[in-house]
Amino acid sequence: MTPAIDGPRLLARLDSLAAIGRTPTGACCRLALSDDDKAGRDQVVAWMRDLGLTVSVDPIGNLFGLRAGRRPDLAPVMTGSHIDTVRTGGAYDGNLGVLAGLEVVAALNDAGVDTERGLVVAVFTDEEGARFAPDMLGSLVFAGGLAPDEALAVRGIDGAVLGDELRRIGYAGTAPLGEPRPHAFVELHIEQGPVLDAEGVRIGAVEDLQGISWQEIRVRGQSNHAGTTPMRLRHDAGYVAAAIACFVRRLASEMGGSQVATVGKVDLVPNLINVIAAQATLTVDLRNTDEALLQAAERRLSDFLDQLAAEEGVAIERRSLARFEPVRFDPAIAARIAAAAAGRGLTHRPMTSGAGHDAQMLSRVCPTAMIFVPSVGGISHNPAEHTAPDDLVAGAGVLLDTLLGLCNEGE
Amino acid sequence: MTPAIDGPRLLARLDSLAAIGRTPTGACCRLALSDDDKAGRDQVVAWMRDLGLTVSVDPIGNLFGLRAGRRPDLAPVMTGSHIDTVRTGGAYDGNLGVLAGLEVVAALNDAGVDTERGLVVAVFTDEEGARFAPDMLGSLVFAGGLAPDEALAVRGIDGAVLGDELRRIGYAGTAPLGEPRPHAFVELHIEQGPVLDAEGVRIGAVEDLQGISWQEIRVRGQSNHAGTTPMRLRHDAGYVAAAIACFVRRLASEMGGSQVATVGKVDLVPNLINVIAAQATLTVDLRNTDEALLQAAERRLSDFLDQLAAEEGVAIERRSLARFEPVRFDPAIAARIAAAAAGRGLTHRPMTSGAGHDAQMLSRVCPTAMIFVPSVGGISHNPAEHTAPDDLVAGAGVLLDTLLGLCNEGE
Repeated sequence: MTPAIDGPRLLARLDSLAAIGRTPTGACCRLALSDDDKAGRDQVVAWMRDLGLTVSVDPIGNLFGLRAGRRPDLAPVMTGSHIDTVRTGGAYDGNLGVLAGLEVVAALNDAGVDTERGLVVAVFTDEEGARFAPDMLGSLVFAGGLAPDEALAVRGIDGAVLGDELRRIGYAGTAPLGEPRPHAFVELHIEQGPVLDAEGVRIGAVEDLQGISWQEIRVRGQSNHAGTTPMRLRHDAGYVAAAIACFVRRLASEMGGSQVATVGKVDLVPNLINVIAAQATLTVDLRNTDEALLQAAERRLSDFLDQLAAEEGVAIERRSLARFEPVRFDPAIAARIAAAAAGRGLTHRPMTSGAGHDAQMLSRVCPTAMIFVPSVGGISHNPAEHTAPDDLVAGAGVLLDTLLGLCNEGE
Repeated sequence: MTPAIDGPRLLARLDSLAAIGRTPTGACCRLALSDDDKAGRDQVVAWMRDLGLTVSVDPIGNLFGLRAGRRPDLAPVMTGSHIDTVRTGGAYDGNLGVLAGLEVVAALNDAGVDTERGLVVAVFTDEEGARFAPDMLGSLVFAGGLAPDEALAVRGIDGAVLGDELRRIGYAGTAPLGEPRPHAFVELHIEQGPVLDAEGVRIGAVEDLQGISWQEIRVRGQSNHAGTTPMRLRHDAGYVAAAIACFVRRLASEMGGSQVATVGKVDLVPNLINVIAAQATLTVDLRNTDEALLQAAERRLSDFLDQLAAEEGVAIERRSLARFEPVRFDPAIAARIAAAAAGRGLTHRPMTSGAGHDAQMLSRVCPTAMIFVPSVGGISHNPAEHTAPDDLVAGAGVLLDTLLGLCNEGE
């Protein structure tokens, strides 16, 4: 019997999980290691056990459900995502990847299908980074990118210590960290961007993930009376902030390709109508799929800042808030995803992920790729975040085919 | 005997007045119609009486001290300014004009000099507009630009009603409003800008005063993920705000002359590093000494906003917060001021006032001009506001000569 996704079963589990931590405005709030996160984890563990998976938890709270294969000596294939959310999250961000993984298991069980390699469904701790920084914390530790002791000592935005919270909710596990090292990792996720929806395409075969450069820029000028100060005698920190924002827009336009640039945060002091700003603090978010180009963008910005500071007679300080190199996913797995979509008669296209994901970290330890399904209007991190039920189910189908193929890959 | 300014006497009075309402940081805080403003008024009234002036108060609290002339049938000459301050004011803003006026009276008294026309020293209510809007409220009512009942009903930033406060501090007067209509008005004031200080010039003969156009602009775009949203699909309210700020800088540069342009206040929503801004609210402050040019600047900005809204796919609303036409002062009085400075061996230059003053309102009812003295570093509305004592005294000397000439002008 051919394994088949049970759409209503998947959608019902998504609804059940979405109800855990639901806020009065209909958003989903399961901040990492909160009581609602615990309740969500407990539910997922119960489903894993119902499906006959062997459940384990590692020291950073990453949760794994293993469906054994015929060849326990071969590395298993892993799928999954996260169930922690931002404060005003939607129902599918992360949750889709986990519950579609469970639905794949259920489909294989129902069809009585065994696979060469085992299949692991993973729930990584604290992907969002909303309570404990950085984001993708659990998968970063899994991949050996952050020492567990350091991660356990992280203090959250509410002052709580990560290790204490992990113990408090009963998810401080003992399974050996980083094991099993997967044969491959495939993550199904909503796009959280507008491309698939705008183009009417149903499946994204994600080939790469943007490198991220976050900087905070602080401009110090001189506050003065807006009426009495001639233009030539000004050191306007507010104008300088605007000039930087206009520059990064031009930079992204000229560079083209995958380059994006955003000034999302600007704060002026004193921020009064008739006072030339003394100080401006702004953030610049640069992303590119190519590390050399991302560095070039950073250099061009830096040179511009030096020139602008000299021209305007202001002081400009910059500090890096975050920096991740781009990630190239595994082209063979991306090809499997495209073929699976085509085989199911689904429109598909190669894609870049502009957001960070657990897959970004897993790519450090095994061949990895992602499957995207459309986000209506590109809306994310918002209760209005939505993906059509048919698209959720279609994505799960592509995940099933892809995982099945990988689980039956030989040595 | 030739009347002569007594520098130490003037400086001593300035120090005494500065001590009333002094804050722990050394600033001067006498918000209009507060107890500290009352105490300041009481002190000035006492000095007026000591100097033999006839004191009167009008229904909006404007305070006048008259030194009679030989010809009471001729309109008197008026000088003065304000003694209310902003929350963190300096010692000379407004106070210099009032106390230099009293010092001129003292000098005339000491020299036993009578004049044809009388001399009135005026203290106008609520010039700053910091507690009760608008600014220049008392002189605006005096000049017939705002009905007294309307002014008395103004509610302040603390919820107090102007008329109640005026009665509370005992300055709701009965002298007929708008009388006497002066023969001329001359106001001595600190520059509150950097020009005289930067050029090493000691006296400004102020010929005109900038028109002011204040707008609030609200941009509505669409918030989106900074990583996953391609540049071509963005409706970035934050970028639009920056483009407007860069445009008004270019506009002022191209127009030259007296045109200045400032974006002093910018507020983004949600103002997060990785979210394209949904909304931006900013203010644009445009000033020019020429009404036609100021209107042209407003039109060019408006056209730019329309074009930008269409290009970026955002909605841009604008509303006017304030609009005052430029004021041309009386060239003959400005010439007297320049001659007085030259006669005293003081460097001088014609100037434009970039800030609003009571003289702006008085110019609606009589020939008016202003004398500026340097502000060190152009700093104003700040406890660091400073003018060298020699410059304060020099200004008073120029005021004396100018007033004496005007007081002896025939019909």
